[in-house]
Amino acid sequence: MERLPGFRDFYPEPLPSKDAWSADARSYLFDQWRAVARRYGFREYDGPPLEPLELYTAKSGDEIVGQLYNFSDKGERAVAMRPEMTPTLARMIAGHQRNYPKPIKWFAIPQLFRYERQQKGRLREHFQLNADVFGEKDPSVDAELIALLIDTLRALGLTDEDFVVRLSSRNAWQEFFVQRGGTPDRAYAFFQVIDKLEREQEAESARLLQALGFALPDVQEFIRAATPTEELGLILSQLSARGLSPYVKVDYNVIRGLAYYTGPVFEAFDRRGEFRAIAGGGRYDNLVKVLSGGKVDLPALGFGMGDVVLMELLRARARLPEFTAGIDVVCLIEDEARRPQTLRLAQRLRDAGRAVEFSLTAAKPDKQFKRALELKARCTAQIEPDGSVRVRELKARDERRLSVDEFVQSMTQAR
Amino acid sequence: MERLPGFRDFYPEPLPSKDAWSADARSYLFDQWRAVARRYGFREYDGPPLEPLELYTAKSGDEIVGQLYNFSDKGERAVAMRPEMTPTLARMIAGHQRNYPKPIKWFAIPQLFRYERQQKGRLREHFQLNADVFGEKDPSVDAELIALLIDTLRALGLTDEDFVVRLSSRNAWQEFFVQRGGTPDRAYAFFQVIDKLEREQEAESARLLQALGFALPDVQEFIRAATPTEELGLILSQLSARGLSPYVKVDYNVIRGLAYYTGPVFEAFDRRGEFRAIAGGGRYDNLVKVLSGGKVDLPALGFGMGDVVLMELLRARARLPEFTAGIDVVCLIEDEARRPQTLRLAQRLRDAGRAVEFSLTAAKPDKQFKRALELKARCTAQIEPDGSVRVRELKARDERRLSVDEFVQSMTQAR
Repeated sequence: MERLPGFRDFYPEPLPSKDAWSADARSYLFDQWRAVARRYGFREYDGPPLEPLELYTAKSGDEIVGQLYNFSDKGERAVAMRPEMTPTLARMIAGHQRNYPKPIKWFAIPQLFRYERQQKGRLREHFQLNADVFGEKDPSVDAELIALLIDTLRALGLTDEDFVVRLSSRNAWQEFFVQRGGTPDRAYAFFQVIDKLEREQEAESARLLQALGFALPDVQEFIRAATPTEELGLILSQLSARGLSPYVKVDYNVIRGLAYYTGPVFEAFDRRGEFRAIAGGGRYDNLVKVLSGGKVDLPALGFGMGDVVLMELLRARARLPEFTAGIDVVCLIEDEARRPQTLRLAQRLRDAGRAVEFSLTAAKPDKQFKRALELKARCTAQIEPDGSVRVRELKARDERRLSVDEFVQSMTQAR
Repeated sequence: MERLPGFRDFYPEPLPSKDAWSADARSYLFDQWRAVARRYGFREYDGPPLEPLELYTAKSGDEIVGQLYNFSDKGERAVAMRPEMTPTLARMIAGHQRNYPKPIKWFAIPQLFRYERQQKGRLREHFQLNADVFGEKDPSVDAELIALLIDTLRALGLTDEDFVVRLSSRNAWQEFFVQRGGTPDRAYAFFQVIDKLEREQEAESARLLQALGFALPDVQEFIRAATPTEELGLILSQLSARGLSPYVKVDYNVIRGLAYYTGPVFEAFDRRGEFRAIAGGGRYDNLVKVLSGGKVDLPALGFGMGDVVLMELLRARARLPEFTAGIDVVCLIEDEARRPQTLRLAQRLRDAGRAVEFSLTAAKPDKQFKRALELKARCTAQIEPDGSVRVRELKARDERRLSVDEFVQSMTQAR
């Protein structure tokens, strides 16, 4: 029985086929995401992968239902597998924000689900690093969040030649819109045209803009000038102080499709433009209030970074490390009479935190040794008839004889 | 809008309420699970949380549907949120086992879903450490798997006074059953009675056994004698060689409810008997063949360990460590003019892998320092007017002045 289309199995390396997904690469990615988020003082949270359907329709309207894995559960509740994390997060924050000092800096790595047409870099599930900050309006927080985004990608071995964060501002576009006589009821339609500018034919964009009372050359000139707002200026200067200028540029082509963004917005792209956006986010100062039914009003900002596009990029740029089982010691058993002693040795090494393998059944010594080489183990250890341990370092091809205690001791310190 | 009943939110510590679930404790648990599995050479895998419904009915019959989160997706496929990992794993193994040397030792930490009546230690979702081995019949592999189970619990600070693995054997019961003239068609019904023996009234058990042609005292004597089979004897001797005897005992009360077990079976319980089983598993040598439609025949064994009962036990025995944000350095900004230099310092420390916090907006020095204490940071660092760094170790209450380079250097080596 096959798995569902758009869903993935994750296998240990070496992978069984070229298009298989690597569980080791996924662990590596999640470890890096977690490590960098923690360096920035972000704390991990999680919520249910199944939520009341209303949680999503309240934010995105009934149209979203067409893209959801939604159903009635056995208690006749309308439920949906989570398509995004923000509504869950807003519920958690609205309920318990008083317990946490501001700004609240949280992250999660949820698996998200959307029933949509399959295409490159878009499956029906993916994992996403979500990082959000609540309770602070100052743009220095936007700078901190964007720095986290940049450092997350740097930690994966990507450089300023590989990616750039395109920084923009809903406020800048709002001002542009108002200055030229735009009326509030048409603002979202205008933002939608801007959002599609890069992907749309010029004539079509010009037509759409004209219908809203705008001229394409005027819009193009505004984008070309890329004059940072005061807010963006502060964000840029704080990123500059951190030495992160090479990773960011003002680019008003970015505006983000969703209705709820309110201030600075940004997207990370590969420099060569071969992939979809790596990450995207921005300010959403009104959303907590909307989603909490007016009970809690907290400024907020955040970004999401999916695993699929990022993994494609890391593979294309050959930035993934080699993954092995990470075995420290393979114990060799030359004579089955010494299996009990060897089991004791393996236990002591594992108790000391070392990864240990050995043949669980009787096997020829050369076969055991070959397996140690396949596993790329650091060393082999064989208990000799006199009770000592013969240790072979497989890279250095160095051989030593130690007492069991000496060997365990050396493996306890090493690492 | 509330979350669904039986589902959990996970919050960073300090927790907002006494009954809230801790994301930090969950991370700690998963980290320990992963670390110990890797020490044993187990490799991580994962599969989809949504699978074809048939994957589960093929193994467990149509009765299981009543306990599933199942529905028709928008492509009219009958699907279900995974209630267990074994069918997914069997599919993956059957498809790609040729790629991996035997025995294949794999683990996963899936979230599993069951629509069932809520009760203590049983929610509608939980996480489960699944560890399985494929391709080896020898009971030394059972010993290795049980040792992994024991060491997983030991790594969490539990001792032989806290838990015991009750080891039993389907083969022993099968032999008992056949010796006393049991017929194959009644074997499963007999196993079901044995499985419920400890929870059922004696009179009722006696009645049920008699109906199957057995006498309760005979069954009780067999359990009391607890004579290990040859297979169990080998497992016990290998656990003894590892020094793990105190954690295991033969107990024929255990038989495991599910139909598909074939050899040794086991369950881990807290010694005081206050909780449901912490973990359970055993041999299932025929299941891969059944689930692969006869295509692949591999002996197999495995166990599952859920997060809910285990977390209750760890809390009850006070074995969880204290969780903090793990901040290494809080940078203090006495004068906003020195914010750019401080940002640069924070960046360098984070680049060196340190977790760094600082006030993102202007704040009074004593408030900043108080926050560092709240965070239980290792130290504070303040850039002085002369460009040097004043470092205060918060535990040792020690104060030093260093150059920025010296400080970054010291934080790069430390840890």
